[in-house]
Amino acid sequence: MTKQLQGIAASNGIAMAKAFRLIEPDLSFETKKVEDGSKEVERFRQAVSVSLEELSAIRDKAKVDLGEDKAAIFEAHLLVLNDPELLTPIEDQIKTDLINAEAALKEKADFFVTMFEQMDNEYMKERAADIRDVTKRVMAHLLDVPLANPSMINEEVVIIAEDLTPSDTAQLNRQYVKGFTTDIGGRTSHSAIMARSMEIPAVVGTKEVTSVIKHNDFVIVDGLTGEVHINPSEEVIASYKQKHAEYEEQKAEWAKLINEPSVSADGHHVELVANIGTPNDIQGVIDNGGEGVGLYRTEFLYMGRDELPTEDEQFEAYKAVLEGLKDKPVVVRTLDIGGDKELPYLHLPKEMNPFLGYRAIRLCLDQQDIFRTQLRALLRASSYGNLKIMFPMISNLQEFRDAKAILLDEKDKLVADGVTVSEDIEVGIMVEIPSTAVMADLFAKEVDFFSIGTNDLIQYTMAADRMNEQISYLYQPYNPAILRLVKMVIDAAHKEGKWAGMCGEMAGDELALPILLGLGLDEFSMSATSILRARTQLKSLSKAEMETLAEKVLQLRTNEEVMEAVKAVIGE
Amino acid sequence: MTKQLQGIAASNGIAMAKAFRLIEPDLSFETKKVEDGSKEVERFRQAVSVSLEELSAIRDKAKVDLGEDKAAIFEAHLLVLNDPELLTPIEDQIKTDLINAEAALKEKADFFVTMFEQMDNEYMKERAADIRDVTKRVMAHLLDVPLANPSMINEEVVIIAEDLTPSDTAQLNRQYVKGFTTDIGGRTSHSAIMARSMEIPAVVGTKEVTSVIKHNDFVIVDGLTGEVHINPSEEVIASYKQKHAEYEEQKAEWAKLINEPSVSADGHHVELVANIGTPNDIQGVIDNGGEGVGLYRTEFLYMGRDELPTEDEQFEAYKAVLEGLKDKPVVVRTLDIGGDKELPYLHLPKEMNPFLGYRAIRLCLDQQDIFRTQLRALLRASSYGNLKIMFPMISNLQEFRDAKAILLDEKDKLVADGVTVSEDIEVGIMVEIPSTAVMADLFAKEVDFFSIGTNDLIQYTMAADRMNEQISYLYQPYNPAILRLVKMVIDAAHKEGKWAGMCGEMAGDELALPILLGLGLDEFSMSATSILRARTQLKSLSKAEMETLAEKVLQLRTNEEVMEAVKAVIGE
Repeated sequence: MTKQLQGIAASNGIAMAKAFRLIEPDLSFETKKVEDGSKEVERFRQAVSVSLEELSAIRDKAKVDLGEDKAAIFEAHLLVLNDPELLTPIEDQIKTDLINAEAALKEKADFFVTMFEQMDNEYMKERAADIRDVTKRVMAHLLDVPLANPSMINEEVVIIAEDLTPSDTAQLNRQYVKGFTTDIGGRTSHSAIMARSMEIPAVVGTKEVTSVIKHNDFVIVDGLTGEVHINPSEEVIASYKQKHAEYEEQKAEWAKLINEPSVSADGHHVELVANIGTPNDIQGVIDNGGEGVGLYRTEFLYMGRDELPTEDEQFEAYKAVLEGLKDKPVVVRTLDIGGDKELPYLHLPKEMNPFLGYRAIRLCLDQQDIFRTQLRALLRASSYGNLKIMFPMISNLQEFRDAKAILLDEKDKLVADGVTVSEDIEVGIMVEIPSTAVMADLFAKEVDFFSIGTNDLIQYTMAADRMNEQISYLYQPYNPAILRLVKMVIDAAHKEGKWAGMCGEMAGDELALPILLGLGLDEFSMSATSILRARTQLKSLSKAEMETLAEKVLQLRTNEEVMEAVKAVIGE
Repeated sequence: MTKQLQGIAASNGIAMAKAFRLIEPDLSFETKKVEDGSKEVERFRQAVSVSLEELSAIRDKAKVDLGEDKAAIFEAHLLVLNDPELLTPIEDQIKTDLINAEAALKEKADFFVTMFEQMDNEYMKERAADIRDVTKRVMAHLLDVPLANPSMINEEVVIIAEDLTPSDTAQLNRQYVKGFTTDIGGRTSHSAIMARSMEIPAVVGTKEVTSVIKHNDFVIVDGLTGEVHINPSEEVIASYKQKHAEYEEQKAEWAKLINEPSVSADGHHVELVANIGTPNDIQGVIDNGGEGVGLYRTEFLYMGRDELPTEDEQFEAYKAVLEGLKDKPVVVRTLDIGGDKELPYLHLPKEMNPFLGYRAIRLCLDQQDIFRTQLRALLRASSYGNLKIMFPMISNLQEFRDAKAILLDEKDKLVADGVTVSEDIEVGIMVEIPSTAVMADLFAKEVDFFSIGTNDLIQYTMAADRMNEQISYLYQPYNPAILRLVKMVIDAAHKEGKWAGMCGEMAGDELALPILLGLGLDEFSMSATSILRARTQLKSLSKAEMETLAEKVLQLRTNEEVMEAVKAVIGE
């Protein structure tokens, strides 16, 4: 059946391939009495045995495709599924209580999962997750429900999912996954950000791809417009092949601007820089003509491991980035953990509202050993390039003063030890909390620069969790309230001779760029893959005209009115 | 041992009495093998039997002191503790596995609790809570750990607790509870708000009362300064008796202003009105000389029940409040549910950040049947007094327009049906989201009034959950960012000939009042018990001088600098 859905364009490009459904199976069942316990045990053993075979195959394939590392998880699953401590009680219960294998499996598995989870021990908690995964597989076989095995994909596909988690993607082979589309999520959800960094087309927030698209349906995902076509006609396929070719051509056109400056039609220069997460991202910055790094998210150094990174490990990473970018500016954000980004080994308390909680600079000022280690590593690396240090989640001047005092203290100690430290490190802040935007005039007297973090600034200013589907319409980047705060920050910086950048999603947005140019933003930091498109757009805009536009939209009343006003001017 | 602690003064007055510790007992134990299963079962039965006796006594006393209603919970507990379905499996396991009664009790109780909790059924979930409570009591007896029974208090006490929950206080007999002091919490935590509404002195956030104060220690709680004295000397007791007498005298002095207008030393009038939750609070407003109601929190109508209140039930409540206040203004806030205020029967989804989630006007615009019922009840009641309607959590103009359109639609329908509806209902909004404060100039062209909700405005502006102990220092009412937003709102209202009030905690604060007077706030809504103190303070302040103060503090850089500046002027 031919059908078309509309979602949110989350990552540019066009993907065409067979659908691969990556869906949580329905494993509901009823508890039933059985007459023959031995026969039921036999059925259970059969399901276990098929699961074992399957897991071995997955393990072997994962070793080849993804490496020993990622295959280890399946090794652990095999161990669980061979463990008599789990299997025997299940078989005993089937025989004693004469209930179906599903019920016995669920009861015993839940018991072990609860027990392991309650232990205050990371290793045991992982065992709980293993048992849950393995149980799911056996249950699927008992119920004869198909289970998706993403690591087994060996042909080109488009992934269809409710949402994609980091662990889902760890199992994906990028060679075969051409694009994806999800039920939920928005432009700033994890899956959308991931798609842009993987440079694969994606459409999120379609609400119904998982209910409409069947396994092996032929699917087109249009990451430029947010359209998803299911089993399209030959005409539609032909037109998309054409569109795909045009997109590739446009990319080639953009590529010609790699070594050009970023300048408006009337000659105003700005900086177009990139957001990065690891030293591996440097090549992408260079390939896309980035003029530096506007946001180096250092969290990744701390994630996916069992303990804090050492000063030397951090030093090496920072040095690699600074050297890789030569003398181009690199703005490093100090640790921004907490909120939706957890570090299990820090044993942070569960919070009722993590986005309004103990995170980023709040944690760093409290657990100073972590903060000081990072600052020392940064200071030591500073002589290898053009380093700027930025503190995240600053909400009041006292926090900035405290953080800077710690930085200077560590610098003095290093210098006393004879370590070379750059004398020209600019020290600035993220502006992502409304109080700081409102106080920008006074902050500007003390900081060297501002970088506006719009993802958080929007969610706090509108009091709307950007991950919460039910109120995602309140994530309004063009709401005049946001634009007014942005203006306050830029004006405050310029009044004191400082610069103002932006490193949220908005900086790379085609409708926002004209307004931001008009407001006088100095530095735009975005996904590396957006830089050339932005440079092309910039060339077509007159700063003087955008100043008039910006003045006008600040007096409009709603997000929609602003979008319309911008479209009217840039002719979209 | 004589000792003194410092906490946060949360409710005015001085309490002196014996300490009553209301503390979660330490019920940890080790799983052990026992030799004689029958003997262990006997020990278990003994603990159950003592628990049964205790519960019967509590139930009987609760019936007399608190009424049948509140005693019902203990009836339920007795049922659970007589249920062989719970007791037999425990005894069986002790005998079969030869483990201690504690271990068997915990395992079986956890099993039932988990099972009941997983059922999607409110009744079953309450049974899970009952089992948990009853198990705690039996476990305490097995371990010989004392268990606090607040409902059994029959002499004057000061409650010592980590924190106080609504269910704790439901069991407290106000006749005997003279004050309380807690480890955690701040001026706006639930327990602090409750203390003020119960009019009992309280000191919260002491960090260590539960570890320092023993049962029956003699304790003085100074709700004026935040001091807590443990087993003080005769001299200290004498001085506090003196202080207590002076406080009572001051209250008598304040009482003389009951029928006076609220006016500054240089003749500027403002309105001092009260926050209320139910029609029962009207008497307190009148007794304390309130000039009306600035915030009627309608949530209480919806809480503590199994289904939505009907239109008629609501109509009766609104009518009672409007008639009770005669022609004084009554600002009714439409339903503000969600966030930390749950209604189980609405089955709202669990959210990662409920404070940034689906609540208040967001829910009302989505579930319009709930909203329309409330609006109809309000409109029908409008002819019985001076009603003003206020929408909570407005973040953008579209929401206000949508809400007002629904209100007008219901009004038209009622009028068409021949119902009398007042023609003079002002329709305004809470300003508690930063975006709305920033856009106040444009809102002021469409709304009839603003009421600034500082509790939320502060937490969103600072991006800090006010309930989160670890970052409670970021709840900064005097941060110049907050004051600047307040100024924007007041100025915007006045420019359009509208009025601006405040109904957050800050409106009743002695250090904030001078600034708010200087900024030109028109209406101050606070706990009824704060009104006379505020009226007294107002008489001593010159508006002209406070304008100078306000101008000055808007240019200061931190919360602390502002507090010092105010103290310097008002001479504290």
